[in-house]
Amino acid sequence: MTDTAPRPTLEAVAARAGVSRATVSRVVNGGDGVRDILVERVRKAVEELGYVPNQAARSLVTRRHDAIAVVVAEPETRVFADPFFALQLRGISKELTAHDNQLVLLLTEGRDDHARVGRYLAGGHVDGALVFSLHLDDPLPELIQRAGVPTVFGGRPGWSGDRRGVVYVDSDNRGGARDAVRHLAGLGRTRIAHITGALDQTSAVDRLDGYRDVMVDADPRLIAEADFTPAGGERAMRELLDRCPDVDAVFAANDLTASGALRVLRETGRRVPDDVAVIGFDDMLPVAEQTDPPLTTVRQDIEEMGRLMARLLLRGLDRGTPQEGVGGTPSSVVLPTTLVRRASA
Amino acid sequence: MTDTAPRPTLEAVAARAGVSRATVSRVVNGGDGVRDILVERVRKAVEELGYVPNQAARSLVTRRHDAIAVVVAEPETRVFADPFFALQLRGISKELTAHDNQLVLLLTEGRDDHARVGRYLAGGHVDGALVFSLHLDDPLPELIQRAGVPTVFGGRPGWSGDRRGVVYVDSDNRGGARDAVRHLAGLGRTRIAHITGALDQTSAVDRLDGYRDVMVDADPRLIAEADFTPAGGERAMRELLDRCPDVDAVFAANDLTASGALRVLRETGRRVPDDVAVIGFDDMLPVAEQTDPPLTTVRQDIEEMGRLMARLLLRGLDRGTPQEGVGGTPSSVVLPTTLVRRASA
Repeated sequence: MTDTAPRPTLEAVAARAGVSRATVSRVVNGGDGVRDILVERVRKAVEELGYVPNQAARSLVTRRHDAIAVVVAEPETRVFADPFFALQLRGISKELTAHDNQLVLLLTEGRDDHARVGRYLAGGHVDGALVFSLHLDDPLPELIQRAGVPTVFGGRPGWSGDRRGVVYVDSDNRGGARDAVRHLAGLGRTRIAHITGALDQTSAVDRLDGYRDVMVDADPRLIAEADFTPAGGERAMRELLDRCPDVDAVFAANDLTASGALRVLRETGRRVPDDVAVIGFDDMLPVAEQTDPPLTTVRQDIEEMGRLMARLLLRGLDRGTPQEGVGGTPSSVVLPTTLVRRASA
Repeated sequence: MTDTAPRPTLEAVAARAGVSRATVSRVVNGGDGVRDILVERVRKAVEELGYVPNQAARSLVTRRHDAIAVVVAEPETRVFADPFFALQLRGISKELTAHDNQLVLLLTEGRDDHARVGRYLAGGHVDGALVFSLHLDDPLPELIQRAGVPTVFGGRPGWSGDRRGVVYVDSDNRGGARDAVRHLAGLGRTRIAHITGALDQTSAVDRLDGYRDVMVDADPRLIAEADFTPAGGERAMRELLDRCPDVDAVFAANDLTASGALRVLRETGRRVPDDVAVIGFDDMLPVAEQTDPPLTTVRQDIEEMGRLMARLLLRGLDRGTPQEGVGGTPSSVVLPTTLVRRASA
């Protein structure tokens, strides 16, 4: 068995050039998508160190793994408790499997683990990433950008950094919220409350904005903050009844929140929809059909969102320009929503 | 930027030697755990091809990824529908996170995708694998063995091949089943039926064996086959009532199956436990507490099983002999079960 003296590694080049391993990889393999100034720095480091990219390393960085990472920016307990994620994963799984790509779900206990997720993404184990349920102050988007992994986001990312090349799939959260509140107003309701989602997520902010679009002079006491969970919906509904006993309608940020609100309304002897009309968001089945009464809600096609995320990513990888659409313009997609009428409003 | 002529790759050596990439890796990095005859073949191929393991390739094969794959040999729809998997994953996730290892969940649509999972495992993306819910004719164990990835199984694997070095964590399924059936007999029941789990899984076979240990001369019509799902439990209970209307007790292979059986008993006007006593297996919460009446069941600590699987794997990786215990003997663990009495028996 033969062996040689240690040779400079990709890591050493990255350290010398002050760039990520992924950036070195891309330069060594053609330099696509790397700024000229960085390409120059990497080339200088390569020459200074006498780095020789070899076949194994090249295949390591150029070969397709036919594997796509999925990152849900929530603790694994939440991923398994909220059917939203199962539905989105179902769409993703179907699409990836149809293209013989492996779905690699990276689970965490919480935000403290996101640096480790970033390291895995940067480690060359997947061809791209699908990321959803981002929260505003999450370090994940930056870690992903540094990892240099082609990514499609589920839901419009809310961070304020450089958004060039960011591709996402979202629902028309603001338009859907407007439809819900208009429907409640059309029923003659005047004290229409809103229970928000987690306001560090753009979907919650957009739904609140849609509510405000219609309720331009809304009594601020009619807005109660929650977090997309049934327990959050219960707490917020109690607050609302406490502050505004005359509330006659509620638009809840999602169906799980609405189910919690319905429970509190029933406990406190309010009839739905006679005393208080309620509308949710998602049309999550069987939840929305099994509430008492069955829930009027804003439907978004969650499984289709997952499928579309996967399709956009795979198409981008095939074209070699994973984060940009035809002609270099980002190809994000915003899907329409529809109001589904059941008994609650 | 410099570059060299193509050099022989690890793959070329593997092809020449007629062994897997993983075997070449292990030989090149010390040869531990590879049969002498294979070591010789690899060394010959290395010399003939002039293969030079380089730093990058070495780090590729020796470096710890601090990532562990989890493979559930079920379609992703089942993974998200059956709380058993969420619980086992919870235990795994807690343990891996405590050791700063990334949980990499490989989801599939079904058995046709297991070859792809094998490829991912062989691709050097993880340090080890945790595999559960194996079915008898599943190609996965062989694919994993070929991939050369240290593995701990959840549940005793049932395949008939070489089992040396196989490490698993299981519950005492047979002993737990015996406890359940003895309890029913102790209540004076004489027509005790069993609804089985999926009989291509060892857990189901072991529970059936435990039933037979106690009911040595059982009427074969008292055994109905199901598949660990509520719908399967309903079907099997209808069969049983049809064949043996005098059945006075049922031991179901798990709590979900028992919940289906309870529904059918209620529909057909049987009182539980007065007319028919029912016992499940798992003590899956909240299922077991929310059935009508609450379910007497055999408790296994599913989350602890997951935690233990992860712990055994990580310990093995630290020792460098991931599949063997101290002194070379396999260190599989079988956890005890306990009967939890509620209202149904």
